[in-house]
Amino acid sequence: MPQGQVSVTPTDGLTTRQRRNRPLLVVHTGVMKGKSTAAFGMALRGWNQGWSIGVFQFVKSAKWKVGEEEAFRALGEVHERTGQGGPVEWHKMGSGWSWSRKAGTETDHAADAAEGWAEIRRRIETEAHRVYVLDEFTYPLKWGWIDVDEVVDVLVERPGRQHVIITGRDAPPALIEAADLVMETTKVKHPMDAGQKGQRGIEW
Amino acid sequence: MPQGQVSVTPTDGLTTRQRRNRPLLVVHTGVMKGKSTAAFGMALRGWNQGWSIGVFQFVKSAKWKVGEEEAFRALGEVHERTGQGGPVEWHKMGSGWSWSRKAGTETDHAADAAEGWAEIRRRIETEAHRVYVLDEFTYPLKWGWIDVDEVVDVLVERPGRQHVIITGRDAPPALIEAADLVMETTKVKHPMDAGQKGQRGIEW
Repeated sequence: MPQGQVSVTPTDGLTTRQRRNRPLLVVHTGVMKGKSTAAFGMALRGWNQGWSIGVFQFVKSAKWKVGEEEAFRALGEVHERTGQGGPVEWHKMGSGWSWSRKAGTETDHAADAAEGWAEIRRRIETEAHRVYVLDEFTYPLKWGWIDVDEVVDVLVERPGRQHVIITGRDAPPALIEAADLVMETTKVKHPMDAGQKGQRGIEW
Repeated sequence: MPQGQVSVTPTDGLTTRQRRNRPLLVVHTGVMKGKSTAAFGMALRGWNQGWSIGVFQFVKSAKWKVGEEEAFRALGEVHERTGQGGPVEWHKMGSGWSWSRKAGTETDHAADAAEGWAEIRRRIETEAHRVYVLDEFTYPLKWGWIDVDEVVDVLVERPGRQHVIITGRDAPPALIEAADLVMETTKVKHPMDAGQKGQRGIEW
């Protein structure tokens, strides 16, 4: 084995090829918005591989990350038109999910979040996508709207070669424990510290 | 002023609108590749605003970040075809820059890097782009191939409303000092620690 590439010799019984292509569970946590940005950057690479990308945003605001949403929708259209890259689905909770027949309620975010997870679980079990971005997914876990143990079970047992990328602050310990890659973005210096407010094209 | 938005009252003499739209110098540093990923995620938002995006990669390998490159080139083509988003230029040093008439040399990376910076400086002075991603730009600074003081002067004095995003390890202190936003991505847990090698669609 070449020196300097890996820090321990694996003892998982996998071949190098199996290990190289092992599906990853990635958690981007920490206090800054960079965690979602990094997750979408990873999804860009998956798109270029021709993989099916499924984004599920557990957020309420329509404005939130609309830049990334528009860019990914455009990439999905590139795929439909030319075959380049992979297909893209982008769903956000907002006031109810886009696949849901019932109108979203203003107040029952817990039920909306649980419905979102139920759909993601179905998709994982049927291998609907190759890359899942579960954006801000740690919040419904934290608030008890979705059962952490169930999530970890489904993710650990997921079939095939599906990569799952989860973002949000305060990722639960069981999720961190199950993850292959955990990244934390920390602020060294931020313009809001100097009285700057968020601006278009930068913060969203 | 609403509570909880900014931590100090600005004393820069700018109006709220001027401050909101102040062009930013952003540095993504730290040891993980997430820093470039985050930079490209920011550029996605700029693209959605219709801004001209200029990416300059100070790297040698053609394979490096090809996923992001292909995705941004596709977005640039979307703009040309439909007018959605903004135009995209993506240049990488490789063996000489694409705009250069002379063939790149195999060995004189220092000259290539200096030529890259000279072109970026010209573009900044003529306001050629609205967003610049100078990817892995800290390395030629660290190695003395490009003068840090000159870079900081050009960036601090740049005209108009040009956002500049710089990535790479070991950003020089003068650059950190000049930056409005400095982000550092830290690894909490990485699959290479468990013997995993890089894989397509994830690492590139």
